[in-house]
Amino acid sequence: MPKVIDHDQRRSDIIDVTWALIVKGGLEAATMREIASEAGFANGALKHYFPGKDEIIQGTYDRALGMMSEGVATAVGDATGLAALRAIVYASAPLTEEAIVAGRVLLSFWERAMSNDDLHQAYLSHLTSWRGGLRTYIEQGRADGDIVTPTPDEQLVDEIVLINVGANVMSLIAPELSTPALLEAQLDAFFDRITTA
Amino acid sequence: MPKVIDHDQRRSDIIDVTWALIVKGGLEAATMREIASEAGFANGALKHYFPGKDEIIQGTYDRALGMMSEGVATAVGDATGLAALRAIVYASAPLTEEAIVAGRVLLSFWERAMSNDDLHQAYLSHLTSWRGGLRTYIEQGRADGDIVTPTPDEQLVDEIVLINVGANVMSLIAPELSTPALLEAQLDAFFDRITTA
Repeated sequence: MPKVIDHDQRRSDIIDVTWALIVKGGLEAATMREIASEAGFANGALKHYFPGKDEIIQGTYDRALGMMSEGVATAVGDATGLAALRAIVYASAPLTEEAIVAGRVLLSFWERAMSNDDLHQAYLSHLTSWRGGLRTYIEQGRADGDIVTPTPDEQLVDEIVLINVGANVMSLIAPELSTPALLEAQLDAFFDRITTA
Repeated sequence: MPKVIDHDQRRSDIIDVTWALIVKGGLEAATMREIASEAGFANGALKHYFPGKDEIIQGTYDRALGMMSEGVATAVGDATGLAALRAIVYASAPLTEEAIVAGRVLLSFWERAMSNDDLHQAYLSHLTSWRGGLRTYIEQGRADGDIVTPTPDEQLVDEIVLINVGANVMSLIAPELSTPALLEAQLDAFFDRITTA
């Protein structure tokens, strides 16, 4: 009887290994040879599961994104408007060890996406949906009378994105300078500001 | 008579080539082989000018940093306090094509610095000096009575850093969403806020 191979499980194992290699040594450490070796595959066997390195990186990035989205969805729950905006902003910020580690994968992804159009398009599509979610909650918050700042919605969306991305990078590179406490204080100040006329 | 080799010029040429390779294809494109080939050197000849790839990357990053520092120093001039803070914040933001391209080198540097302690320490030392400069100008601005926000200085410093780093990444990855106009509006709003009681 031929051995039954669970392809999804294998793909998931390959992503586990790639994730660990990126967290430990960055993109350069995640060579096809190293991924195959760590996953216990012969050289060249990765091709049965992923067409190439970009698809493995994409899969790893999708997992980082999935982890973040799950955390965000749990935090938002049934909330709308200001409460949902607060939930999404805090849950997607690098305030936990898990979010900081996922940010490491994201940093590698950004570097590679700059030179790879497929990865770039994938990120833009995520970003557009993230920004759309933020905009919707801001509009609801205004309709509810909770968000009263005269600052335009698009500028608020951009501010949330820049602080989040900047915090992702700094929480990895300089956690002793850009501390979670400072980030929380900044986010608290942002919410005070947009809810005060 | 032996040919006189200008080592500094050669090192500078190697950095030119590495810069161009990173801007075009990221860290992965800047292999030692490719750098040697583009600089017109035999394989292995790079060793006469740099001990290894990390030192070439460090040199390229130092140039990106040098360009930014020069722009900032010119912008600040003899100013102090609030005027100097405004100058440093706008001059270091990715609002020009040159600053956006330098940010591409910085993104690659961050990715690599996460897995290389020497590069990491070099960046932390730059960051500490940058934050120190911001703090000094904020303190002067308060003493002059220009900066009146109750927000603590260290939180203001961190906010400037996160917005700058986030804008660096987004101006490369999503310039159509995070536009220079939105960034300018954010920086203007920041200065309105810290100068209003």
